[in-house]
Amino acid sequence: MNDAEQEPLWEGPGEVGLVEPRDFVYGEPFTFESGQTLPGFQIRYETYGHLNEKGDNAILICHALSGDHHCAGIHHLEDRKPGWWNNIIGPGKPIDTRRFFVVCSNCLGGCQGSTGPSSLNPETGKPYGLSFPFVTIRDMVRAQRRLIDHLGIQQLFAVIGGSMGGMQVLQWGIEYPDRVRRLIPLATTARQNAQAIAFNQVGRQAIITDEGWCGGEYEPEKGPRVGLRIARMMAHITYLSDKGMERKFGRRRRQGEKVNYSFETDFEVESYLQYQGKSFLNRFDARSYVYFTRALDYFDLPTQYGSLEDAFAGLKARCLVIGFTSDWLFPPEQNRKIVLAMLNRRKDASYAEIPMDFGHDSFLIDAPELYELVRAFLE
Amino acid sequence: MNDAEQEPLWEGPGEVGLVEPRDFVYGEPFTFESGQTLPGFQIRYETYGHLNEKGDNAILICHALSGDHHCAGIHHLEDRKPGWWNNIIGPGKPIDTRRFFVVCSNCLGGCQGSTGPSSLNPETGKPYGLSFPFVTIRDMVRAQRRLIDHLGIQQLFAVIGGSMGGMQVLQWGIEYPDRVRRLIPLATTARQNAQAIAFNQVGRQAIITDEGWCGGEYEPEKGPRVGLRIARMMAHITYLSDKGMERKFGRRRRQGEKVNYSFETDFEVESYLQYQGKSFLNRFDARSYVYFTRALDYFDLPTQYGSLEDAFAGLKARCLVIGFTSDWLFPPEQNRKIVLAMLNRRKDASYAEIPMDFGHDSFLIDAPELYELVRAFLE
Repeated sequence: MNDAEQEPLWEGPGEVGLVEPRDFVYGEPFTFESGQTLPGFQIRYETYGHLNEKGDNAILICHALSGDHHCAGIHHLEDRKPGWWNNIIGPGKPIDTRRFFVVCSNCLGGCQGSTGPSSLNPETGKPYGLSFPFVTIRDMVRAQRRLIDHLGIQQLFAVIGGSMGGMQVLQWGIEYPDRVRRLIPLATTARQNAQAIAFNQVGRQAIITDEGWCGGEYEPEKGPRVGLRIARMMAHITYLSDKGMERKFGRRRRQGEKVNYSFETDFEVESYLQYQGKSFLNRFDARSYVYFTRALDYFDLPTQYGSLEDAFAGLKARCLVIGFTSDWLFPPEQNRKIVLAMLNRRKDASYAEIPMDFGHDSFLIDAPELYELVRAFLE
Repeated sequence: MNDAEQEPLWEGPGEVGLVEPRDFVYGEPFTFESGQTLPGFQIRYETYGHLNEKGDNAILICHALSGDHHCAGIHHLEDRKPGWWNNIIGPGKPIDTRRFFVVCSNCLGGCQGSTGPSSLNPETGKPYGLSFPFVTIRDMVRAQRRLIDHLGIQQLFAVIGGSMGGMQVLQWGIEYPDRVRRLIPLATTARQNAQAIAFNQVGRQAIITDEGWCGGEYEPEKGPRVGLRIARMMAHITYLSDKGMERKFGRRRRQGEKVNYSFETDFEVESYLQYQGKSFLNRFDARSYVYFTRALDYFDLPTQYGSLEDAFAGLKARCLVIGFTSDWLFPPEQNRKIVLAMLNRRKDASYAEIPMDFGHDSFLIDAPELYELVRAFLE
């Protein structure tokens, strides 16, 4: 029994199991939406399953703000956790790796292997810092397309992603209508609204006004650790929901019922947030956080294309938008608007709203209703 | 016309006009709920109107987290703004100073004249800092009662306040059932929930992890200015609403429609928040912020009294609870629960819900519907 528990849970017939990230190097000049350029870039990615001969069974997974390319399987047998979407990707799972070739890449501008503001600028030998070009959702998608070309994928069977990933999904359908057949954007928006911009702004300010920020030119292991931790703690609240937090933590105390007069961590919800903030420091770079949050803020399809309907004018893919009732960061209303605009343009689009209490992060949580929807839409 | 515009707007027949704060010194030992003690304390307060001979026409106004005793009138003819609730208090206004003697005091633990953690400890000659006793809502109310005694007020005609002020209103009805006849708690809760604790925790962490915090023992004009600013910016978002921010700011940019690639203040909502954060530094002390947010977190009538119904067992005052539809910090549901518990105990209680888009701060905003409710309830 004890031996069994020590064996990795993520190896076995229904699991992706051991995987290895790979790097794609694009050696051509790349112009960002801002007009800024890079002589080339690297994209770190993972794949699960096999590409068929026709090259038409690939599914691209797009990650959210704090996600990465490691969405399924494990890197080492000792890993305590698998990739961030392991519950939905694998042999026999809704995104079935026996049938599909699944690709997930770290976004351009990221800090987990893809070129970003913490990468070394070959011209100076130092991190790019703020000299790195501004990255938009469209830039991320255009970089992903180079990877998809490189992998020999003619047409993606589907592009799927939640939150910032959902924005990329929409952008894929708009930018490359002939390269993708199905879209599943989850818990997302076509237009970042004022409240979401405001939260991102506070997070960025916490980072930028931290003395460790040094104009974005800090050394590895240093940097605005106080600010990044605060930014993450705050953002994490916006990923949950009032009801969900109440059910998970309520006013439970760490040390029984007694009031433990303290300004630090008397309540369980407090130590949970502290843990979230601290662990984030070990896996994310503050520069990428600043860049990605700005990419979210600048995402505004209605303005970019004249109207949301016009944004979807050339769309060819079938689209299933999924919203979550308790998501107050990108609430159901914002998800519904996407589908309405598509339907107004006579596109093949549908909307599903899943009643879950876990807030914005619902799409990351074990959810049978979500699994069935995704499975059915991919059949 | 120009001359007229330069005259203070807050002088005239319908205005409280010039007022002067006063200090009440309580020279007896005071034991806090935590068991900690002070040899005495000072409370800064203002009054408007006149106490009648029977001493029964007084209304106590309780301020919210970042409020103070200056709720109506002006201190100087040059003041650009009157007290924070001037729109509802004055001759002929809903809280009519021709009829009522209105009292508002800076809470115990505050930083605007009442004794608090930034006050000098007479024993050391230095600010109390974290050696100041923990302050609860009940402690604030018990200190206010000493002031009410001092002013010769036998029985308050009403106690009124929103948010943290609303908690004090509830506590007044519970603690001193014979000393108050009417209660109007607005936009409040009987029990701080997990999400609200979480936001407070992030704010406190921003302050406490700022190097300027120095364990709460910083000099005047110094201190955790970066952290306090971040805490205020974040909290300010929770006082507004998604819809309200969308209507007020949307995605409007400071410099026209063009994307001004910047991580700082491209959008108007960003400069608004920056302004809110910065101006807060000039009027609030980080120590009081930490103490007051903890007072909010520790407010939990159901646990303190066994159940919310039991908390109201001895209540004698008539109560009108007012919630605001767009308040997501203390949402309507939490306000309704107060009234339900009172009604279950056969108390004289009613509930009004005002449809306003301004979020939690709706109670501070010019609102005819609110004015009529308050006026009618005080008649």
